[in-house]
Amino acid sequence: MPQRVLTGIKPTGTPHVGNLLGAIRPALRLADQGLEAMYFIADYHALTTVNDAKELRQLTLEVAATWLACGLDPERTIFYRQSDIPEIFELTWIFDCFTSKGWMNKAHAYKAIVAAAEEKGEQDADAGINMGIYSYPVLMAADIIAFDIDLVPVGKDQKQHVEIARDIAQRINHVYGGNVVRVPQPKIDEDTATVPGIDGRKMSKSYGNQIPIFASPKALKKAVNQIVTDSSPPETPKDPDASTIFQIFKALATPEESHQLAERYRSGIGWGDAKKALIDRIEQEVGEARAKYDALMADPAKIDDLLAKGAAKARVTARATMDRVRKAIGITR
Amino acid sequence: MPQRVLTGIKPTGTPHVGNLLGAIRPALRLADQGLEAMYFIADYHALTTVNDAKELRQLTLEVAATWLACGLDPERTIFYRQSDIPEIFELTWIFDCFTSKGWMNKAHAYKAIVAAAEEKGEQDADAGINMGIYSYPVLMAADIIAFDIDLVPVGKDQKQHVEIARDIAQRINHVYGGNVVRVPQPKIDEDTATVPGIDGRKMSKSYGNQIPIFASPKALKKAVNQIVTDSSPPETPKDPDASTIFQIFKALATPEESHQLAERYRSGIGWGDAKKALIDRIEQEVGEARAKYDALMADPAKIDDLLAKGAAKARVTARATMDRVRKAIGITR
Repeated sequence: MPQRVLTGIKPTGTPHVGNLLGAIRPALRLADQGLEAMYFIADYHALTTVNDAKELRQLTLEVAATWLACGLDPERTIFYRQSDIPEIFELTWIFDCFTSKGWMNKAHAYKAIVAAAEEKGEQDADAGINMGIYSYPVLMAADIIAFDIDLVPVGKDQKQHVEIARDIAQRINHVYGGNVVRVPQPKIDEDTATVPGIDGRKMSKSYGNQIPIFASPKALKKAVNQIVTDSSPPETPKDPDASTIFQIFKALATPEESHQLAERYRSGIGWGDAKKALIDRIEQEVGEARAKYDALMADPAKIDDLLAKGAAKARVTARATMDRVRKAIGITR
Repeated sequence: MPQRVLTGIKPTGTPHVGNLLGAIRPALRLADQGLEAMYFIADYHALTTVNDAKELRQLTLEVAATWLACGLDPERTIFYRQSDIPEIFELTWIFDCFTSKGWMNKAHAYKAIVAAAEEKGEQDADAGINMGIYSYPVLMAADIIAFDIDLVPVGKDQKQHVEIARDIAQRINHVYGGNVVRVPQPKIDEDTATVPGIDGRKMSKSYGNQIPIFASPKALKKAVNQIVTDSSPPETPKDPDASTIFQIFKALATPEESHQLAERYRSGIGWGDAKKALIDRIEQEVGEARAKYDALMADPAKIDDLLAKGAAKARVTARATMDRVRKAIGITR
């Protein structure tokens, strides 16, 4: 049996080039590595912060269309929405009963919010925190354990979530005896590509420095032209490694292509030409996918249909897990 | 439209005479007061403390058989298990996203546990608390709001739960506009009958002083004979109001019957005769119901079937609520 691997996608922002290289492509490669890959849109995680119906719907469609356009194959992999799997929420309550509140107090994200509130001198550090934000690691554990997942690829900063899921799974197995649920393992991504944004800092929605993957050619050109450069004239030799334009180019291009552009930098290149090289390279990279993306976004019913089919496949496993857990705890239908 | 009223029954102990008079009978009378009554077995609430499969199953059956034997009519009312309504758990997550963590910190039950831990000098007051215990008011809110409940009968000490459910319902309606969910109201029971146990304190499982409703005649006799009395001889006139035996009798009997026994007390009664009067009165009260109870307990499949039919009726409303909430928040199927 191939190992089963799970990737969650939180629909809280329009996907950008940093997501494409740092998250989407590495996740899609899992399906080529002999693993059984599952991908889900974590729409109920987004609800902790996105409280506008149209926005949540739009972000869900954008994220689904992006991953499909970037090569997610819904025939070879399982692609579904979290909200289509009711078993996840029943398991969440069951897991709540086996999750020490002390663990939640130690969760990185919660601690960071409390620390920020204390720094601001807030009277009640919990004031702005809803129970979704506080208890989401339990929902994550259910996201994972419902599907008998073996491996969860995570960055180092996300490792704790998988550890909490492991703890919960082990506790259930210990209390009720035997292998009621599968215990997942983290698969730490050591060298996730990070791509600079138009201001040179890491590309991130929170910095507002992102280049959207499927911006129109015009918007793409506008974003790239905002990249900050110095005022050196075209003929001056330039250090490619000191240039944000080159860094973004290199993250996308082959080594050969990067080598050629680096040579042009060293022999003198105008910033306008460098930006044009980057725009052309992005266009080459995403042009075809953009057409696919636009076609999907024009047909939301098709996206819904694909996700519903994925959910039907995913629920087979979730139902089996639910049945095992219910039998173990003494709640039977 | 009649107002809809909800009663939850947590299967954490074998029902006793205190439950019968203080909870079961008042709740069953609701169906005679022109209200649409729903009753549910809160098995997933019990999971916060009952972690033995056989025990949870047994308690669920006992509680169901007790209420049915005591007169719950599954044709006139809706009687179901919480665990048969998956919508409750999805709503719980949604409500988590609209519940301030600060409210949970102020919940009476949680505060009482923390105070007890601090009194014992525990390093971490949260150490023994699981997330189910901490967040159960959110599950309660879903228990209520899923079924468009108008009124929730509660003792004064339970009023806070309904207030939290009201807050959540009002918040959802405020954020998304309009009447997405029905806002429930507490129906405070001012004069709930309290019955003393065999040691004279309030009858309660936690004191171990209870008389089970459907104990065998032999066990019933044994429990009543343990009631503490003084050593005054039979012929001494006795004060009925100072006697635990009389208090339990009075809680069960008609005013006329109580008056007659009080007269016997005043003209002198042996404790053995007083106990016999109580045993006979309990036997008269529960004898017929005990036969019904025993028949139900001998046929668990029948109980399961009745509860499944009730769940099918209850889910019609839960699904409609779920659909309204999903549409409001932007998560559609």
